[in-house]
Amino acid sequence: MEELPPLKLDTEVISLEDTFNRKISQDIQSPIDVPHFRKSRMDGFAVKAQDTFEAEEDNLIALRLIETIEAGSIPQKTVSAGECSYVATGAAIPEGADAVVMVEFTDNENGTIFISKAVSPGSYVIGIGHDIKKGDVIIPKNSLVDLPTLGILSACGIHTVPVFKKPIVSLMSTGNELVTHDAQELEIGQIYDINSIVLKQAIENTGTTVNYLGIVKDDFKALTEQIEKGLKESDIVLLSGGTSKGEGDLGVQVLDTFENIEVQVHGVKIKPGKPLIFAKLHQKIIFILPGYPTSALSCFFVFIDDFLRKLSGYPLRSKNTELLEVGERIYSPIGRHHFKPIQVKHIDGTKKIFPIKTGSEAISTIFRSSGYIEIGELEEIVEKGDRRTFYTY
Amino acid sequence: MEELPPLKLDTEVISLEDTFNRKISQDIQSPIDVPHFRKSRMDGFAVKAQDTFEAEEDNLIALRLIETIEAGSIPQKTVSAGECSYVATGAAIPEGADAVVMVEFTDNENGTIFISKAVSPGSYVIGIGHDIKKGDVIIPKNSLVDLPTLGILSACGIHTVPVFKKPIVSLMSTGNELVTHDAQELEIGQIYDINSIVLKQAIENTGTTVNYLGIVKDDFKALTEQIEKGLKESDIVLLSGGTSKGEGDLGVQVLDTFENIEVQVHGVKIKPGKPLIFAKLHQKIIFILPGYPTSALSCFFVFIDDFLRKLSGYPLRSKNTELLEVGERIYSPIGRHHFKPIQVKHIDGTKKIFPIKTGSEAISTIFRSSGYIEIGELEEIVEKGDRRTFYTY
Repeated sequence: MEELPPLKLDTEVISLEDTFNRKISQDIQSPIDVPHFRKSRMDGFAVKAQDTFEAEEDNLIALRLIETIEAGSIPQKTVSAGECSYVATGAAIPEGADAVVMVEFTDNENGTIFISKAVSPGSYVIGIGHDIKKGDVIIPKNSLVDLPTLGILSACGIHTVPVFKKPIVSLMSTGNELVTHDAQELEIGQIYDINSIVLKQAIENTGTTVNYLGIVKDDFKALTEQIEKGLKESDIVLLSGGTSKGEGDLGVQVLDTFENIEVQVHGVKIKPGKPLIFAKLHQKIIFILPGYPTSALSCFFVFIDDFLRKLSGYPLRSKNTELLEVGERIYSPIGRHHFKPIQVKHIDGTKKIFPIKTGSEAISTIFRSSGYIEIGELEEIVEKGDRRTFYTY
Repeated sequence: MEELPPLKLDTEVISLEDTFNRKISQDIQSPIDVPHFRKSRMDGFAVKAQDTFEAEEDNLIALRLIETIEAGSIPQKTVSAGECSYVATGAAIPEGADAVVMVEFTDNENGTIFISKAVSPGSYVIGIGHDIKKGDVIIPKNSLVDLPTLGILSACGIHTVPVFKKPIVSLMSTGNELVTHDAQELEIGQIYDINSIVLKQAIENTGTTVNYLGIVKDDFKALTEQIEKGLKESDIVLLSGGTSKGEGDLGVQVLDTFENIEVQVHGVKIKPGKPLIFAKLHQKIIFILPGYPTSALSCFFVFIDDFLRKLSGYPLRSKNTELLEVGERIYSPIGRHHFKPIQVKHIDGTKKIFPIKTGSEAISTIFRSSGYIEIGELEEIVEKGDRRTFYTY
């Protein structure tokens, strides 16, 4: 699906706390130096380095302690020759001082500090802008906000952040047989709607907002109205069901009535999940997934998950792959590229691939599967003992 | 930190939509058979199989079409010998019928259906409970709810779910020098609080709820009150800062006043992030992380992240590891087990490890790092050309 167009997302300014996993919409510069004052790297005494040049263990230099400066407090006195101020780790270095002597190399006797080690100018002083300089681009446009990004933004005192809006997907399930999962009792012929709740979560997991439009009956007018509503309210419309009805394909029939729409059918030769309908209309995209939940979710992962993540900036799912031995012959229909859900079992300490006997009509198929293998269009049999790459969803 | 006790979490019943990534607190049984009626696997005609036994391409069997049954509708008529009903994929099989002939092997001439292929009883009929049987344990206790779990629960019409409550961590930052990131201007000596926002997100990423208690001054009474408040309101108290003050360790001084507390110091020999304080009090846990954000976050990942995830049931972070060549000599202090943040750079197409020159006082250290390597207590130098395992945080 390389032909999927990059949708253009609007931008918004949000509070720093809400930016985790959001995509930054413009280069962000630091408004301040970090640190913005000279600070001590250690607990010690701020001195004029020159005063310590002669200091050795057998030649202690005496300095007069004029102030104690804790982290967070403002130095009140300037250090002159022969003087020093106590500085805690992280505390501001007072005017006049240009180095810190670690507390380990000092002795305090009634306010006189004896120094046993020479320090050079700058020792244990973290300079202004040492970490980040005012005006530095700290986060480039299009970055995804992760924990270190939150840290940098906090350090610079930035509390509102320009980000791209999340893409919005309008979601609906279609089918006369579907009822919501909190319905009281099922009539004969009815089943609970699974795709709404599973696909809603799958879409949200990609950093995308869901605009849920409910269950739509297999009715031309109702479906047209809901697709139009979805196109108005979101960037992408995603519906499941209605692609393999005996009466023809209601979803495609509706799409064909839109002007300037480009409809493509994917995966006619793919199993499970035949077919996936994909349409472009102006700057919007419509997906129609198959109705069986196992097929719908497989199709979502194979075709749509990466697309939404690239759009939102979310990291792609790490698709674990392993080359494993097949533990039992697996059959596959000729002429279909098969994403075959399989189970991985430990046999004598070795992981092996086994077929799942239920089909895509069973919700438990994907539940019981460890992942899938790919079986080519021209392969009818994968023999026991073959080695195959196993993918997790 | 194997000695961390398993905290006992309470349970609650929540709406299915809110269960993603939550841990199920008791075995869940299906209240229904899935499917709960016999349904057709294909578009076709529901028949008595016996009627078709003689059917062949050159011996068509004629059956009278008595009804058309779409998915979701209730069959009104019983199929008798010589009769059939149209059934769409997923539609209910009517009484009397015991098999489905695929539409491909039929011809419809004015309400008479000609069958060209014999079917055996049960063909293309999905039986009651084929997928899930009423009373089956569909989700065992302690399962984490993932997408397939949501699917199974929906399929069974379950809409409220018993789960363990999320663990709660009370979080605070300590330090007189800290101000919130949305403060107007920094005074000399002040810095923006980074740990509150970064650790809050890091904790939430483990499926844990944060009870944020704000910035606490380096004041014995204030810190005691806030830790007591945290112990009352949550399972775990986590504070950062105050572990390396010149005046002694305020956090530990406060902890020592609690009765029956067990205080342990970890990582005295670890860099960065020395030390981590860990205390057990009755069934509660207190962590004190170092104040420097780079150290605090490293410490969190090395010691606390997995612990919280095991508690909430979240999957552990996948720690990518790679054996890479060291591109430049790296120094490390003797006597400290060092989790050294490093950069991975591509040199002539090969990934190599390079040291980061800034220390743990710089927020940009962790931001610029690709991950870390471990350097043993007795190693002072990692030579250029050595090969080391590189871990991502």
